[in-house]
Amino acid sequence: MKRVEIIAVGNELLIGDVLDTNTNWLCRRLTMMGAFVRRAVLVRDDEDAIAHEVQSAISRGTDLIFTSGGLGPTDDDRTVAAVAKALNRSLVLNEQALKMVEQRYRELYEQGFVDSPEITPPRKKMAMLPEGAIPLFNSVGTAPGVWIDAEVTTVVCLPGVPAELKAIFEQSLPPYLGRILGKGYYAERVFEATCRDESVLAPLLKKVADKHPSVYLKSKARVFGEEVRITILLSASGGDKEATERILHAAIDDLIVELEQKGIVLAPLSER
Amino acid sequence: MKRVEIIAVGNELLIGDVLDTNTNWLCRRLTMMGAFVRRAVLVRDDEDAIAHEVQSAISRGTDLIFTSGGLGPTDDDRTVAAVAKALNRSLVLNEQALKMVEQRYRELYEQGFVDSPEITPPRKKMAMLPEGAIPLFNSVGTAPGVWIDAEVTTVVCLPGVPAELKAIFEQSLPPYLGRILGKGYYAERVFEATCRDESVLAPLLKKVADKHPSVYLKSKARVFGEEVRITILLSASGGDKEATERILHAAIDDLIVELEQKGIVLAPLSER
Repeated sequence: MKRVEIIAVGNELLIGDVLDTNTNWLCRRLTMMGAFVRRAVLVRDDEDAIAHEVQSAISRGTDLIFTSGGLGPTDDDRTVAAVAKALNRSLVLNEQALKMVEQRYRELYEQGFVDSPEITPPRKKMAMLPEGAIPLFNSVGTAPGVWIDAEVTTVVCLPGVPAELKAIFEQSLPPYLGRILGKGYYAERVFEATCRDESVLAPLLKKVADKHPSVYLKSKARVFGEEVRITILLSASGGDKEATERILHAAIDDLIVELEQKGIVLAPLSER
Repeated sequence: MKRVEIIAVGNELLIGDVLDTNTNWLCRRLTMMGAFVRRAVLVRDDEDAIAHEVQSAISRGTDLIFTSGGLGPTDDDRTVAAVAKALNRSLVLNEQALKMVEQRYRELYEQGFVDSPEITPPRKKMAMLPEGAIPLFNSVGTAPGVWIDAEVTTVVCLPGVPAELKAIFEQSLPPYLGRILGKGYYAERVFEATCRDESVLAPLLKKVADKHPSVYLKSKARVFGEEVRITILLSASGGDKEATERILHAAIDDLIVELEQKGIVLAPLSER
């Protein structure tokens, strides 16, 4: 399984002005593709802080680093410069990225959203990429995403505006990402238990988890109004769909038997 | 300004099953109290990974570390054990925490939510705290929050269920937190600009930001349907309300003048 880390950039996240939904969206998408998202971090618009996070993810042997935010034209958009610093590469004008930026401003000018299609210095900044980077077309905003193959680790920089991040991920990333993640399969089932006491479930879950170490098993307490409900999630990942489903179902079957002995029944909540 | 870091714990966050809203809520509340939230990280239910994050936050001279999640009765609730390891303290039965857990199970038993008020081993686990810790009463769930004064850094462990985290923060934390954060004031204004092009705003914002280094100034592009709108947020923190407001308003006045010269008008979006 490929190990992924996410770095979400922006003071607005850490002053609590903006709820970071990008990390959750990336975690879900990457998990479904069979990747293992190990860690995510939120940092300020600080070049050294961002560079430090990139370097420390690389030092942990991370296969794939995603950054979100900090690609725009303003002075506090520092992510690409920070990644270049972390990878010890120069920032150079990327001709392909420049063409993408030119195309987007021409389109926005024709649509009446900007007053001029001219490539001013703040616009040109978005085409300054680390040497050897591949720009990823952004059909929603103006800043291209960035793909950089470093020695072991690949770094992918995406914009912070969720609609832009999603557009690049879905439209421009698939061929590159497929090359790294290969064929991955993820299976998951969620149940609600007829027991609202996690402390009663705890030893039963542990028994099943110990018997099925490759299955992830998690109980989750949620408060609905005055009532606590417990959901149980089981999941497994692997290269092969049938084998992964078989492993997951063996754990589910054991869990059902364990709980039945205590008079607890599981009701399926979703199949994803 | 006190430097804060947040560690959100849970595999469910990194497989994208649950959107972490606790970090955003804590960031907002702590910022409004005058604290500087520098960094937040999401990690898996892994004792070593959690302990590593606590140690690395301490090594950066963090004043206050908040953790969320991993306090419950199940085997994968590892946060308190990880914090004990990071601080090199033993886990011991905390009599005051035990009383809190007993009280909650008695209440839940009387309300018919649990089948017995007995303190079983998984329930007792929630009262095993690092030596010298102070338990924080949880009026919604069962696991007490944990307050630990280490040498320079204070560590506060809160549950992952948002209603429990908020209840402890609002009901049990204020006297302890006030002692550390002291009198802090945060002022913020948000405007919408009559310019939808961040690349035009960029040099104007930079000029104002350079003149007012203690004011945080951020433009933010958002896509509404087919339309991009730019909001501008200005904020300042300080010990004194009047001085902080004066500093903030000087920057706002300069920004209005700068933008006016380019025919751009600011409309206030909110006063917080």
